[in-house]
Amino acid sequence: MWRSHLARSLHQHRNQPEAKFLQLATVGLDQRPRNRTVVFRGFLENGDRLQTPLQDCLKFVTDLRSQKPAQIAANPWAESSWYFTKTRSQFRILGKLQLIDHEYPNQELQSARIETWQALSDPARIQFSWPHPRESRIHFPKTEPPDAELPLDSFCLLLLEPIEVDRLELRGNPQNRWIYLRDDQGNWTEQEVNP
Amino acid sequence: MWRSHLARSLHQHRNQPEAKFLQLATVGLDQRPRNRTVVFRGFLENGDRLQTPLQDCLKFVTDLRSQKPAQIAANPWAESSWYFTKTRSQFRILGKLQLIDHEYPNQELQSARIETWQALSDPARIQFSWPHPRESRIHFPKTEPPDAELPLDSFCLLLLEPIEVDRLELRGNPQNRWIYLRDDQGNWTEQEVNP
Repeated sequence: MWRSHLARSLHQHRNQPEAKFLQLATVGLDQRPRNRTVVFRGFLENGDRLQTPLQDCLKFVTDLRSQKPAQIAANPWAESSWYFTKTRSQFRILGKLQLIDHEYPNQELQSARIETWQALSDPARIQFSWPHPRESRIHFPKTEPPDAELPLDSFCLLLLEPIEVDRLELRGNPQNRWIYLRDDQGNWTEQEVNP
Repeated sequence: MWRSHLARSLHQHRNQPEAKFLQLATVGLDQRPRNRTVVFRGFLENGDRLQTPLQDCLKFVTDLRSQKPAQIAANPWAESSWYFTKTRSQFRILGKLQLIDHEYPNQELQSARIETWQALSDPARIQFSWPHPRESRIHFPKTEPPDAELPLDSFCLLLLEPIEVDRLELRGNPQNRWIYLRDDQGNWTEQEVNP
């Protein structure tokens, strides 16, 4: 299925950190699309064991003070566009976002949030202690890196649970393209389509 | 202004074709965001001389049979996210899309459409002669490249006219970020904000 193809692209780009950058689009409160580059933090493990199972979730991190939380509350849909330069493969991943903030009640997902924090580098963690994003620039006081064990309240885990994946392989003439759809039972179907 | 910074990033990546790939988000008819990788085809020239002037328009191409035309008719807003790996710069470019199809009445923009077609490579042009995109895969008959002078009817020029640009420079600790806004008179203002 699409996960094995994505795994292959990730493997072939394992020495290129930028292959972990993808673009995540949401809809703003003004109904305009918003799009930004995010870092892929791996897949959520054991999501299928949750009381409300989650499947194939991509992990990102975000700041509670960014614009995403309000956008997600109003419209949880998102689409990632992920392009791999060496394999010339594009994965468009449509799904719903779930924001795991410091008050999120589910214990397993709260643990996943804390583990994701612990796996960050100091420079990544320190960003969550910076002054409010997108406000007028102020002087940033020099601060020590925050506690590596316990996340700051501004730190959120962001999950994208895919329901549709559009895979395009630019190599080949003509190119090759597949649409993967998830049904209500969580099963994926695959259809080859014209590029 | 932001154009000079973008020009610098483009120059520093001039030998990396993938630096011309950016992600373009729109809103689907179902109010879900849609996001795909597109190729930057340069800026529209002399847009300010049109009867209804256009400013700083980014050029893309698209197929009339893709999903974008209907999406744009319902909601013309789009945001591009463009990440440059060497300079570690991100440009988020919000604006309105304008689709220049084969029936578009304005003569200057129709000429721009034709010139953009003529500047494409044969492999890029031939895609517009392929069977209907996203339908069940069929055998593609071998065809000659289409006329290099006269565009096929499926070929559209797509313009993105920016009104807001969010520039993030990841280099530096802390990082640096600016918001550029266009007012009704077409003048850009710049504000430095917290990253």
